[in-house]
Amino acid sequence: MKADIGLIGLAVMGENLALNMESKGFTVAVYNRSAPGEEGVVDRFTGGRGKGKHFIGTHSIEQLVEAVKRPRKIMMMVKAGRPVDELIAQLTPFLSPGDVIIDGGNSDFHDTERRVKEVEEKGMYFVGTGISGGEEGALHGPSVMPGGSAQAWPLVKDILQGIAAKLDDGTPCCEWIGAGGAGHFVKMVHNGIEYGDMQLISEAYALLKHRKGLDNDALAVVFDEWNGGELDSFLIEITSNILRFRDEDGKPLLDKILDVAGQKGTGKWSAIAAMDENDPLTLITEAVYARLLSALYPERIKANGLYDEPVKVNEELKIEDVRQALYAAKLVSYAQGFSLLRRASEHYGWELDYGTIARIWRKGCIIRSVFLQKITEAYRKNPELENLLFDDFFRDKIRAALPAWRQVVAEGALGGVALPAMSSALNYFDGLRTLHSAANLIQAQRDYFGAHTYERTDRERGHFFHTNWTGEGGNTVSGTYSV
Amino acid sequence: MKADIGLIGLAVMGENLALNMESKGFTVAVYNRSAPGEEGVVDRFTGGRGKGKHFIGTHSIEQLVEAVKRPRKIMMMVKAGRPVDELIAQLTPFLSPGDVIIDGGNSDFHDTERRVKEVEEKGMYFVGTGISGGEEGALHGPSVMPGGSAQAWPLVKDILQGIAAKLDDGTPCCEWIGAGGAGHFVKMVHNGIEYGDMQLISEAYALLKHRKGLDNDALAVVFDEWNGGELDSFLIEITSNILRFRDEDGKPLLDKILDVAGQKGTGKWSAIAAMDENDPLTLITEAVYARLLSALYPERIKANGLYDEPVKVNEELKIEDVRQALYAAKLVSYAQGFSLLRRASEHYGWELDYGTIARIWRKGCIIRSVFLQKITEAYRKNPELENLLFDDFFRDKIRAALPAWRQVVAEGALGGVALPAMSSALNYFDGLRTLHSAANLIQAQRDYFGAHTYERTDRERGHFFHTNWTGEGGNTVSGTYSV
Repeated sequence: MKADIGLIGLAVMGENLALNMESKGFTVAVYNRSAPGEEGVVDRFTGGRGKGKHFIGTHSIEQLVEAVKRPRKIMMMVKAGRPVDELIAQLTPFLSPGDVIIDGGNSDFHDTERRVKEVEEKGMYFVGTGISGGEEGALHGPSVMPGGSAQAWPLVKDILQGIAAKLDDGTPCCEWIGAGGAGHFVKMVHNGIEYGDMQLISEAYALLKHRKGLDNDALAVVFDEWNGGELDSFLIEITSNILRFRDEDGKPLLDKILDVAGQKGTGKWSAIAAMDENDPLTLITEAVYARLLSALYPERIKANGLYDEPVKVNEELKIEDVRQALYAAKLVSYAQGFSLLRRASEHYGWELDYGTIARIWRKGCIIRSVFLQKITEAYRKNPELENLLFDDFFRDKIRAALPAWRQVVAEGALGGVALPAMSSALNYFDGLRTLHSAANLIQAQRDYFGAHTYERTDRERGHFFHTNWTGEGGNTVSGTYSV
Repeated sequence: MKADIGLIGLAVMGENLALNMESKGFTVAVYNRSAPGEEGVVDRFTGGRGKGKHFIGTHSIEQLVEAVKRPRKIMMMVKAGRPVDELIAQLTPFLSPGDVIIDGGNSDFHDTERRVKEVEEKGMYFVGTGISGGEEGALHGPSVMPGGSAQAWPLVKDILQGIAAKLDDGTPCCEWIGAGGAGHFVKMVHNGIEYGDMQLISEAYALLKHRKGLDNDALAVVFDEWNGGELDSFLIEITSNILRFRDEDGKPLLDKILDVAGQKGTGKWSAIAAMDENDPLTLITEAVYARLLSALYPERIKANGLYDEPVKVNEELKIEDVRQALYAAKLVSYAQGFSLLRRASEHYGWELDYGTIARIWRKGCIIRSVFLQKITEAYRKNPELENLLFDDFFRDKIRAALPAWRQVVAEGALGGVALPAMSSALNYFDGLRTLHSAANLIQAQRDYFGAHTYERTDRERGHFFHTNWTGEGGNTVSGTYSV
């Protein structure tokens, strides 16, 4: 009796994924490296949570590979980076042509692009798949975003769609994303959007707590109400639960949690990818920076001493306005995220299906929400949509929310409550919709001091002009230095 | 008669630098590759702008190297990237131990780190030097930021300080920056700050033009006045000149310049470096994104059609408030830039001298300003200053400007004028000075869905806690997946 799949790495995500697979009828061979302090991980699992189930415990890479049916599927749930490359090097000598290595970790998509080529050169297939949903999702049904060797998809489809979350109509939250690093890229943008959503919620929380003066119980009610409407989403829902959660002494636990936010890097990767694709991903980037800023704790204490200015309560602040601002900024955040997907898809030739990507995120993952259906609909209506803000649904919602959104951002600025995500979304929106921006001055300056040339409003695009602004600089234009 | 230095690359920057060197009494051997269409570049130069001066025209790398005194100094002014590596490979066979290769282009500091090691392994020295000041600066005295092989500094000091701009007391705007890629890193941050300054000026321009309703002549007067005060700087000065400049038909040229901002990448590099150093460089990043957004011209036209909302003139807007907002945001921008320098210096072991760096920028470069003297003074008072906002001068200025700054950011949000840099600076400031931010909610969410743990306000730092929020997730904490 051989296993349907082998799984390497029995930390929380790997363990839960293995249990999920087994619960769907698959036999899973498991392996975990025996590093010092980790001896017996496999046996503890097969004798513990995996007891009496269809698991085959193995104690070496070779044993693991031997335990799996051909063509073999070996899934790695290990720390991203060098460990993945090391494991591929250890695996491939035991594998046969046509076998599939699956990386279910949070790998950098550049690495996945490279690994697909390297593994294919050895005759095997490589799938890099994003998996979102945290430990709960891994166990009960995550959102799964596989990409890489297209030939591997028919081989892994049953298992990956089997373990994935299902929409109400049974559609699995897992479809083939695209070639190379497409799966991990989409997962990266998912995580970036997650950073944005969390930052937006925390800004609404800060405003309602400090500026409106609501206590945790009142805030929980607000978030409950919001979760009953168009903001219906996992993150809004857990925010209510968090606000209500009491510590052992009966006081709100949230108030005792230090406001120093951690992160694992995928938010930063999104921002860097945006720079690489020339795409203004402002909201997610500000969300990443907000976490980095929160982590400068000693500097924050010092700054507080020098610039203490308690936030004054303003009871005029309308809860509904804050909701509108959160919703409008969220629309912008997703518009930016999908814009980045579109540019990367063109750059790498992935032919991403944006509507399907939004559908995959509707259940199982951290950003799951009702709203994602609207994105799917927008792309079903127009697969070539350049920016989600051009879709009718988005336009109507943004227009309706705009007065409140403007008011709330102003409220933050005047009241001393940092709203980097809501503000950056509004500035992006105003920048995008402004036909005559101030970038003409930037171009004039660049031409003035660096002869970088400019285009003109009264000439066709693509013609570049230089002005001898000072009468001294000459008519030499800049450009690449030549050698 | 041999040359004091060889210079490769006779595009505008190289040509002007060569003329600058010669004017300071150095004999310069020059060489330019003869690519198709570029034949005769050397002869055109020695027979043109270089005629009758101490130049030695050469027509091959070998000739160039032979024409220079030992230990040789060969400066490259070529396009950054692969051409630099190719040129190093062509040069080194002809060089002798102890010779110095100088890269005066806008190289990525990572490349310079690598090249210093590679060239030193061959027995030669490598200097990567930032040079700022555009074509005018190159000719009359740029700001020069050399780093790399410390042993090379005594060899190149006379020439590099000779060509550099001089402060009124004769101090050259050129000092040794540090090892490896330090020089190019500092130049990169300089350029990032330049992006920030230009964006801030363009935001002030947009507000005063669209919201206050000033015409170009009135705006020119405003910028003249500002240039007479604490904003005294090259970029403010040229903004007045640009606002007054008339096209051939007598109308303001600025109004005919297309508002699509170009860029050459060093702004993006600064943002990416900030991500790598975990440093919230918000203002420069927003300035980069603002340029990228301006370049999405077809999308902007479409967005304008969907979301047209003309900016209403608000005569109540005070010009002095806009000036205060610009100044305060500029203080934040420099505080962020120097914070990035500090983190990189610690990371790479460069031992940067921040006060001297600010001094080097006081003349010759694009961001030259009176204000930089205040940064030098702040670091002379306290070389260990964690953040410029903690210096007395900065604190007093920020406190004084704060009400106006808040008002102006709110004005932008309410009026529909995009102010990404002024807003991000204010949000950074409020984030830094807020002792109880909303990042506790982010940590609670991360622990809720991913068991990422949190620190507590009632425990010492460095102790991490996990809560079983749902009663289902178990007590397994996340961490790196193990294999």
